[in-house]
Amino acid sequence: MEMKLPGQEGFEASSTPTNVSAGELDSDLGPGPGHSPDGPSATESKELGVPKDPLLFIQLNELLGWPQALEWRETGRWVLFEEKLEMAAGRWSAPHVPTLALPSLQKLRSLLAEGLVLLDCPAQSLLELVEQVTRVESLSPELRGQLQALLLQRPQHYKTTGTRPCWGSTHSRKASDDEEAPLREQRQNPLRQKLPPGAEAGTVLSGELGFLAQPLGAFVRLRDPVVLGSLTEVSLPSRFFCLLLGPPMLGKGYHEMARAAAVLLSDPQFQWSVRRASNLHDVLAALDAFLEEVTVLPPGRWDPTARIPPPKCLPSQHKRLPSQQREIKGPAVPCLTSAEDRHRHDPHTPSPELQRTGRLFGGLFQDVRRKAPWYPSDFLDALHLQCFSAVLYIYLATVTNAITFGGLLGDATDGAQGVMESFLGTAVAGAAFCLMAGQPLTILSSTGPVLVFERLLFSFSRDYSLDYLPFRLWVGIWVATFCLVLVATEASVLVRYFTRFTEEGFCALISLIFIYDAVGKMLNLAHTYPIQKAGSSAYGCLCQYPGPGGNESQWTRTRPKDRDDILSMVRRGLSDFSSVLAILLGCGLDAFLGLATPKLMVPREFKPTLPGRGWLVSPFGANRWWWSVAAALPALLLSILIFMDQQITAVILNRVEYRLKKGAGFHLDLFCVAMLMLLTSVLGLPWYVSATVISLAHMDSLRRESRACAPGELPNFLGIREQRLTGLVVFILTGVSIFLAPVLKFIPMPVLYGIFLYMGVAALSSIQFTKRVKLLLMPAKHQPDLLLLRHVPLTRVHLFTAIQLACLGLLWIIKSTPAAIIFPLMLLGLVGVRKALERVFSPQELLWLDELMPEEERSIPEKGLESEHSFSGNDSEDSELMYRPKAPEINISVN
Amino acid sequence: MEMKLPGQEGFEASSTPTNVSAGELDSDLGPGPGHSPDGPSATESKELGVPKDPLLFIQLNELLGWPQALEWRETGRWVLFEEKLEMAAGRWSAPHVPTLALPSLQKLRSLLAEGLVLLDCPAQSLLELVEQVTRVESLSPELRGQLQALLLQRPQHYKTTGTRPCWGSTHSRKASDDEEAPLREQRQNPLRQKLPPGAEAGTVLSGELGFLAQPLGAFVRLRDPVVLGSLTEVSLPSRFFCLLLGPPMLGKGYHEMARAAAVLLSDPQFQWSVRRASNLHDVLAALDAFLEEVTVLPPGRWDPTARIPPPKCLPSQHKRLPSQQREIKGPAVPCLTSAEDRHRHDPHTPSPELQRTGRLFGGLFQDVRRKAPWYPSDFLDALHLQCFSAVLYIYLATVTNAITFGGLLGDATDGAQGVMESFLGTAVAGAAFCLMAGQPLTILSSTGPVLVFERLLFSFSRDYSLDYLPFRLWVGIWVATFCLVLVATEASVLVRYFTRFTEEGFCALISLIFIYDAVGKMLNLAHTYPIQKAGSSAYGCLCQYPGPGGNESQWTRTRPKDRDDILSMVRRGLSDFSSVLAILLGCGLDAFLGLATPKLMVPREFKPTLPGRGWLVSPFGANRWWWSVAAALPALLLSILIFMDQQITAVILNRVEYRLKKGAGFHLDLFCVAMLMLLTSVLGLPWYVSATVISLAHMDSLRRESRACAPGELPNFLGIREQRLTGLVVFILTGVSIFLAPVLKFIPMPVLYGIFLYMGVAALSSIQFTKRVKLLLMPAKHQPDLLLLRHVPLTRVHLFTAIQLACLGLLWIIKSTPAAIIFPLMLLGLVGVRKALERVFSPQELLWLDELMPEEERSIPEKGLESEHSFSGNDSEDSELMYRPKAPEINISVN
Repeated sequence: MEMKLPGQEGFEASSTPTNVSAGELDSDLGPGPGHSPDGPSATESKELGVPKDPLLFIQLNELLGWPQALEWRETGRWVLFEEKLEMAAGRWSAPHVPTLALPSLQKLRSLLAEGLVLLDCPAQSLLELVEQVTRVESLSPELRGQLQALLLQRPQHYKTTGTRPCWGSTHSRKASDDEEAPLREQRQNPLRQKLPPGAEAGTVLSGELGFLAQPLGAFVRLRDPVVLGSLTEVSLPSRFFCLLLGPPMLGKGYHEMARAAAVLLSDPQFQWSVRRASNLHDVLAALDAFLEEVTVLPPGRWDPTARIPPPKCLPSQHKRLPSQQREIKGPAVPCLTSAEDRHRHDPHTPSPELQRTGRLFGGLFQDVRRKAPWYPSDFLDALHLQCFSAVLYIYLATVTNAITFGGLLGDATDGAQGVMESFLGTAVAGAAFCLMAGQPLTILSSTGPVLVFERLLFSFSRDYSLDYLPFRLWVGIWVATFCLVLVATEASVLVRYFTRFTEEGFCALISLIFIYDAVGKMLNLAHTYPIQKAGSSAYGCLCQYPGPGGNESQWTRTRPKDRDDILSMVRRGLSDFSSVLAILLGCGLDAFLGLATPKLMVPREFKPTLPGRGWLVSPFGANRWWWSVAAALPALLLSILIFMDQQITAVILNRVEYRLKKGAGFHLDLFCVAMLMLLTSVLGLPWYVSATVISLAHMDSLRRESRACAPGELPNFLGIREQRLTGLVVFILTGVSIFLAPVLKFIPMPVLYGIFLYMGVAALSSIQFTKRVKLLLMPAKHQPDLLLLRHVPLTRVHLFTAIQLACLGLLWIIKSTPAAIIFPLMLLGLVGVRKALERVFSPQELLWLDELMPEEERSIPEKGLESEHSFSGNDSEDSELMYRPKAPEINISVN
Repeated sequence: MEMKLPGQEGFEASSTPTNVSAGELDSDLGPGPGHSPDGPSATESKELGVPKDPLLFIQLNELLGWPQALEWRETGRWVLFEEKLEMAAGRWSAPHVPTLALPSLQKLRSLLAEGLVLLDCPAQSLLELVEQVTRVESLSPELRGQLQALLLQRPQHYKTTGTRPCWGSTHSRKASDDEEAPLREQRQNPLRQKLPPGAEAGTVLSGELGFLAQPLGAFVRLRDPVVLGSLTEVSLPSRFFCLLLGPPMLGKGYHEMARAAAVLLSDPQFQWSVRRASNLHDVLAALDAFLEEVTVLPPGRWDPTARIPPPKCLPSQHKRLPSQQREIKGPAVPCLTSAEDRHRHDPHTPSPELQRTGRLFGGLFQDVRRKAPWYPSDFLDALHLQCFSAVLYIYLATVTNAITFGGLLGDATDGAQGVMESFLGTAVAGAAFCLMAGQPLTILSSTGPVLVFERLLFSFSRDYSLDYLPFRLWVGIWVATFCLVLVATEASVLVRYFTRFTEEGFCALISLIFIYDAVGKMLNLAHTYPIQKAGSSAYGCLCQYPGPGGNESQWTRTRPKDRDDILSMVRRGLSDFSSVLAILLGCGLDAFLGLATPKLMVPREFKPTLPGRGWLVSPFGANRWWWSVAAALPALLLSILIFMDQQITAVILNRVEYRLKKGAGFHLDLFCVAMLMLLTSVLGLPWYVSATVISLAHMDSLRRESRACAPGELPNFLGIREQRLTGLVVFILTGVSIFLAPVLKFIPMPVLYGIFLYMGVAALSSIQFTKRVKLLLMPAKHQPDLLLLRHVPLTRVHLFTAIQLACLGLLWIIKSTPAAIIFPLMLLGLVGVRKALERVFSPQELLWLDELMPEEERSIPEKGLESEHSFSGNDSEDSELMYRPKAPEINISVN
């Protein structure tokens, strides 16, 4: 005897379905509105210009209290995830991934197959709808009347508006009496704000009804969505209506069936199909397609009552689409994330910014042509409160940097330059760059490597009794010349050789310098200003900054945390300013405790540090003329340093995962740096390039995230507010700061070093390199399930990390010794080391550990991945996961 | 037209199945071995005396490399959870919950229905098995030979034995050549140690085979399990064999089908059924039963490629059993956990210890009768290394307590008693209690409330110019008398009124006192011994203790952390001694840095602190005789205090979730306390009762957990090593310590206060009360999904917590003021407050927030839960979860 699959009985017993296909068929499959069954992130889709089906809010009303006190109560709701009403606790459960039992899905299928399916039902009110739905042969007129009365009874919605949870008005039996109160409640429902405009409702009604002889199933798609009285808790036009009633049966039959119906309706693919279904078969086919794709958890290994919290990232619906639809659809927007997807997207063609034109200055002209149309929007896009917060935060970082660097420069050059030059240079160069550059989000600053070079240059000129500033002027002129040559020859396209290996090495170095400096300064201060007040800690202000672990950017992130209470407006506002608040708190604490901490001191007079010189540097000074030619030699090294420093930073800032829409401008940026090099040399100001860490902090403080999201949905990372204004204002403020000494003197330096420390730690902790260093110290069993560990043997991962660590150590040593002059060459050497790694690691391994260089990319698809595939056979098991790990977590980080 | 359910085609197309039911039917359903389809925790089941089916290890061998280089490779394995071989990385994935696609299960069903099912196949070797399996009509003799050769080919197992991952020997084509090497590998497989004795193997072979015209499916149950050469990576006798081969087909068909087969075999219920199946129908019915129970995740809301880590606790298999089996089966052992299950287990009958006999001293005699048979085992059960570690840990805590308390007592009584009395008393009373008591895990100590009382008594006797020790002797005599009355009248059965409310209030108070004392002492020390050495922190040793969050007892827990490398032996040993090591590290650091910390100072001469008195207290001294009668009044209050203190602690220590097997002895314990009260009064030693926090730490250091567990399985909490020896040795050591002054002087006091602080924080942080206090400060959205929040409105939870907080505050205030004399009454008042809460909270709410008092329990089932049920209808949704939240995490805690 053959056993039946559960639920199979239904098919065999089913008579011809009562399929009333009312209304016309909505079957145009051509491009047009409403053809993508993707998730509900309407904001996002709108930006991509892809029209979507409306979002569906699904509500489950259950008939409870049989037989004495029958009433409808809302017991569950779905947008993306399920929320269950905890009756006894009087609250909605946390949103969770809905789990179903297979039999309930199959019972639902049988019931629908036997029941009433009305597609494009023309009902305009609940009354009309109820009349249509109850027009079933099996019901006697008396029962029909009874059922209609029941269905018109107003359901009890759970209200959260008051201070105590309560239920909606109870005793109004007809939809007509006292219509106003519940409708007002409907409109005031806080959920309404979270749903995008145009959202529709679907209602599932279910329950046990003793007077019914057999189950009654009905599925209705309304032709024109209408608000069906107070049927749903939110006043949305209803599109779907599903009725599942029947005589009492064992267990939680109708409840589970109704949940199955609701979950089906909340599935994007099913929704898509059923919106276009023309008859019962289409509906059942959609259900079968759903069943084909469900994930099944074995009963012995998973507790079916466990609630699964919403995953960080939903699977892409793209590949679930039927093929003809996939072509119509716009670009799929799965959770684009880490560097891993960069080469996956389009590994062969470099981005347009990095294609060689072959003409002199061709790249520069193209950059200008590409960026020019965005110019007006670069100012308009800055009109947002968030930009104000970003300006304050980055301004403080920039000023700290200017002060610190100015001090260091003064020490290094015996006062030939100093804090005043640093301030003026930062303001002038930064503002000019923000106005002209290809990537205006970049914050220009003097960086450690350049300072080291300047120190070497000064001691050289002192050894040969040279007039420093004129000699430096010529170095600057030569560097500008060399850089112009690099721009003319489109050398920036070589940045394609800067893989993650190089980026991470450089970024780790810069971050470590930040941390080292911040901690060093603090220790220095602790030595210089010992505070012995009992019980009070002088540098407690540092504690304001969160640790590096976890989501370290929470205090700079603008993600709205709480929307479910009135305070959430307040909270959201605060979170935008959390970094600034932390700084103010530090200042306030310092002032309150009256600590003798060193404060931010800005020079009060606007004149060069070196007494007696004007702002313009004389071209030769006391030097022989041929020194101006000899300056070409150090200029060559400095050019390499500037190129590397500028371009690695630019590559990091223009990564795919930041979703920049206005494009990069590598050639234009380098051109600007060259011009500013000339300007600062003439004026005797410090030299400037893009600063990795501060620029990343800048971008992070300008993250855009979707605000309206369904319960349980994480806010989507939408991109960065790309504009020129925040940077410009920061540098104007920096310039103005020269005259703000009376205000700035209240800011304690330890607070500012805290910013440095935080930025350094945040940048360091978010690169994959750091994760791999941790792996070195972890037994295999406790290692996280990283994708790269699934594909690269652990020993190879460790080897790669060890090589990277060795390079980092070498760079640090060189930076700290007299050999610092060859530091630029060593940076270039990083690319060479990476190239040499091709001989040690296979392309597959490099693909996972790093990314591929241009030549390697070509070699991969022919043999590389194929050979692995033939043995594993199931490599696609994590294809979806590619897009998963850390969705919009760019933080202050490089990947 | 009716649509088919996916996979339904298979049924209709299937011909009569080739069902060769070889061997006899294993269908005896009577009680006997092998009838519980529960999980593989064989150790646990053995202890319960329930025989079980052997554990099944399932391995998937896939045929890869078609068509050139066909070979079998192991690609997956299952015990409880799935481990996938990450081919490219050359390592096993972390164990995860297997997820399947529904179609693969249905395809498997069709293939089995059409294929060969051999039950109780008599094959004795792989060769015989292969011959049986390939005896299919559809195969030509030539194909059959080819197939047999292929099936006999030795599979490649992934080896982790070497330093680098590698594959087994590759080119031996017959099972006969070079048999030794792979078999040696098999036996050396580290997985072997993790599987319990008697485990069997199941193998699934699958792959695409071009020369087959149609799919070939075979399922074999061997009559006698035999080791099938090197078919499996571990040398286990094989019981099941599943073959799924066929012509190439789209996608990962065979791979997924084979995974489905493996997951099915790893399901306890399916395994149970298929071990007893007598024909194909039984197998298919088992598969259908599996399908009935699977959990389904919707495709749009769950990424099917995401790996779900093993849940903390597996669902109970109990309710999955067929009803006739359920009765035969022994007690279900789901993850018994929090206090919530105590009343659920058996809400109506109190445990036998707490049933009133109605006879004078009836309870005491019953206690003695119940405990006597365990007496020999109370010493034999202590023969374990873990007990040695527990002794060291608890010894240090006890000595610290004795020193601290002795010092306090000396201060309070102007030197009438002191450190020497404290040491002697602790040793004598503790040891005597361990030898006689009903619950020998209890650590006796002088507690804060008793000290407060003693201080009051001393100032009273000073005010009235009484001879303190003789007056105190009479108080002791009266207390002992009152306690004997309480024993005789079986007053201890009243502890049923000590609900969690009382326990938590008391435990929180004691924990806070611990923390307050430890911190207070440390601050005192910091004041007395200021250490100004630059850069060195005197009290850094405190940092050795982990924070209270998370699994705070990891350093005292004996859970084996790493078994996958050789170091794991070492690691396991260290973890048993982690607390002692932390202490030694603290001592070492102190010695190394040469810090001037105060050390543990023990008196060097064995004589009473008060000069001139002997060890026996004279009965009257200088007091009038009637003071001996008047002493009855303070004795009454002290009796209440002793009773409350002793019994609340006893209730906490004897909670169900500790799985104590030897039972409690409330009456006996109180009797012992009374006798010791007499003894210590006569000798002029401090008074002693059970110490909550140290006793909990003692129990925690004696946790037994299963060591052999399947990959991904958490060690099971098996109970406590219940014995008298550790306590006895601790107190003997305490006594000996009086003569160990030269050694003990190396232990710095800050290290010992660290123990106090840790114990206090750990005890405090693990009670539900603390969780609820945190809820007070948390917006609803961020609250964890606690079961009680699903059932009790938040405002009610907050109200309950607030009342508890108020009680705690009142207790603390009373303890700290001259009103301390009424502290015992206030403790009793806690029970009254709890009783009064019945008027504020409904029985359902109290059931969730607390537990029920005896009368309330009776009131619940009639109306209480029913009424809630009728409206929610689906209350059973978290019935399983009852057993889930925090499996064996008793830690140092009360629940």
